[in-house]
Amino acid sequence: MKEKPSRIKGFLAGAREAGIKYQGRPDLGIIYSVKPCTCAGVFTRNRVKAAPVIHGMRRLAQGPPFLRAVVVNSGNANACTGPRGHDDVRRITACAAGALGIGHEDVIMCSTGVIGQPLPVERMEKAVRALAGNLEEDALGEVARCILTTDTVVKEAGIRVEIQGTPVSIYGMAKGSGMIAPDMGPPHATMLAFVLTDAPVDPAWWQQALCRAVDESFNKIIVDGDTSTNDTVLALASGSAGCRPVSTGREARILQDGLLAVLTKLARKIVKDGEGATKYVTLVVEGAETDEDAGLIARTIARSPLVKTAFFGEDPNWGRILAAAGRSGCRVEQDLMELLIGGVTVARSGTGTGPEAEDEARAAMAKDEFQVTLRLGLGSGKASVLTCDLSDGYIRINADYRT
Amino acid sequence: MKEKPSRIKGFLAGAREAGIKYQGRPDLGIIYSVKPCTCAGVFTRNRVKAAPVIHGMRRLAQGPPFLRAVVVNSGNANACTGPRGHDDVRRITACAAGALGIGHEDVIMCSTGVIGQPLPVERMEKAVRALAGNLEEDALGEVARCILTTDTVVKEAGIRVEIQGTPVSIYGMAKGSGMIAPDMGPPHATMLAFVLTDAPVDPAWWQQALCRAVDESFNKIIVDGDTSTNDTVLALASGSAGCRPVSTGREARILQDGLLAVLTKLARKIVKDGEGATKYVTLVVEGAETDEDAGLIARTIARSPLVKTAFFGEDPNWGRILAAAGRSGCRVEQDLMELLIGGVTVARSGTGTGPEAEDEARAAMAKDEFQVTLRLGLGSGKASVLTCDLSDGYIRINADYRT
Repeated sequence: MKEKPSRIKGFLAGAREAGIKYQGRPDLGIIYSVKPCTCAGVFTRNRVKAAPVIHGMRRLAQGPPFLRAVVVNSGNANACTGPRGHDDVRRITACAAGALGIGHEDVIMCSTGVIGQPLPVERMEKAVRALAGNLEEDALGEVARCILTTDTVVKEAGIRVEIQGTPVSIYGMAKGSGMIAPDMGPPHATMLAFVLTDAPVDPAWWQQALCRAVDESFNKIIVDGDTSTNDTVLALASGSAGCRPVSTGREARILQDGLLAVLTKLARKIVKDGEGATKYVTLVVEGAETDEDAGLIARTIARSPLVKTAFFGEDPNWGRILAAAGRSGCRVEQDLMELLIGGVTVARSGTGTGPEAEDEARAAMAKDEFQVTLRLGLGSGKASVLTCDLSDGYIRINADYRT
Repeated sequence: MKEKPSRIKGFLAGAREAGIKYQGRPDLGIIYSVKPCTCAGVFTRNRVKAAPVIHGMRRLAQGPPFLRAVVVNSGNANACTGPRGHDDVRRITACAAGALGIGHEDVIMCSTGVIGQPLPVERMEKAVRALAGNLEEDALGEVARCILTTDTVVKEAGIRVEIQGTPVSIYGMAKGSGMIAPDMGPPHATMLAFVLTDAPVDPAWWQQALCRAVDESFNKIIVDGDTSTNDTVLALASGSAGCRPVSTGREARILQDGLLAVLTKLARKIVKDGEGATKYVTLVVEGAETDEDAGLIARTIARSPLVKTAFFGEDPNWGRILAAAGRSGCRVEQDLMELLIGGVTVARSGTGTGPEAEDEARAAMAKDEFQVTLRLGLGSGKASVLTCDLSDGYIRINADYRT
């Protein structure tokens, strides 16, 4: 695995200021595939879904797994917008199809931003038409910028691998900072991520590979615990690298690993840029009765306001972590519980190991990143979640978001 | 129902500074029943339970439903304290029994405060002995003060009712501000509440009456969503009023209603004094498939950081409320959803009703109290939850709590 590629063979891209919400920055982008590319997708499992999510899910479930373009905008989620929201998706994708000279069914749209406001369709159509003739090979980074909302940094990752002796590239971009507790499944994440590769892939295998990689990456991060109406990951494979389509064997493992590596990097970047976040915490739960229990316990801890504020305060308040585990609904035996913060055992047999250990843990928590490990001593169930703290910055951002 | 009684026949009380954590304020109290009183109790369902909770549950499950005293302290939860925590409960209850001249099994202990630190037993024993000879009829208010932790106000409520022509009093005190999402059941709630009445009661009926009243009051409030290790409600009935024991019929309904009225007032006071809270919100969910669904949807909304910060920001961000309902796991149909904030319909058929409605709703949210009603249009399932906003004050309190 080598450095991040800046372009992916077979794809063009571009971004532009459509004036949707933000001023003086691009907020609408297009990713265009020179030939039909294989598309896999996962979408939020929230039962309240944005119009573009409903359209994207339907397109991938009912149509062939090949696409030509993705239109994406920030500043407006087109969620809870009624029949007009659906019309707007159809209008903008039709506009893009016309301007790019491709079929209407070859375009998927993704949106992120405020819920419940109609899209400024005319301004967006104008931007789409202006962009269509000006797409470039090197503009993926511009799309990565245009999809940001409360994000403070552009999130890109990529690697190069070899398939059958042929160099293949995987590039990913993502946005997401708040409303982050992705729960995405097929054909069902406001995080958005787009992965592009020039590898040729078998469509069914590619969808499975994406689901597996999303379960091990985006579905394991929690910023605030609010699952979005718009979470979407699309994985586009142009096949331009020129090797045989990947579906099984060693090649499949290499590409699967590469995909997971890119998504994991993007997922980490989302948590690190969590709204108001100052701490980046890996929560590991071990010794649960089952992996499912371990996952639920880890997610309950990662959602606990008291645990998250203690992270912000650099307070090794292990009792709050044990208490959160205790309310998860899963079996725990308090006398068996052991907790490590930054590698320091602060609780054992359900009680504290003393002030010196807490001082050591406090020092570990002064860093930007640390690990918390809860051992339950009940079985072999394991899970981990990447999360962040809850700070006054989060409150500021979200009390004022729409004003 | 008349004004709050300041004393309850058959009970004495007192509080004192034991120097557990706080300085210059009482932090240890005793409620003493002149004769054996009937005691009903509910305790937290968190699987991580404080030592006094384990002892109290065991005492009420295994012993007769009669007690003579409750010892309570703030500043230290005696949770996650290992074998020593259990020893400390036994030592302090034994000390109280000796000083009060009653049986060891006649005393229950309740604690609230920091998790994971040993109790300062000697100082507490000293306070218990000093208190034992100085209990008074009019000192319930002092106990109500001594149990406070991050609370900013004393929480008391009471009423007088008539049973068989005899005037009967019900008085309640409670503490609780953070780590508030009570989930209490028999024999299984860091909120503490103590209810005292001079009515005579049938013990089995009294336990049922308490469970019903707790389900309709404390179990319907959420401040931060973190269920405590120490939540406990004890209801003590001295029988000193002199009428026949209450167990069925009209008298039972009157006492049940009176108990619920007192617990509801206390529950409201806890939410109003929620850590950092500036808004007090009644969340009503109607039209769910079942009452259980309605309850889960209401609790999911009440726990959503994005919804709670919007309350703080006085932002009628109805999309966040619909999105929270959508991730509850319960059936919702977004096109059927209707949302009212402060009586103003801000969303109908799953989409917004426009900026004028939002302006009206914003004005309603400028008040300290308002109601949010979500109508799902699916069935007759109903539930309500009392909750508050999430402010920078909450972050400040909980990032610094132990330092």
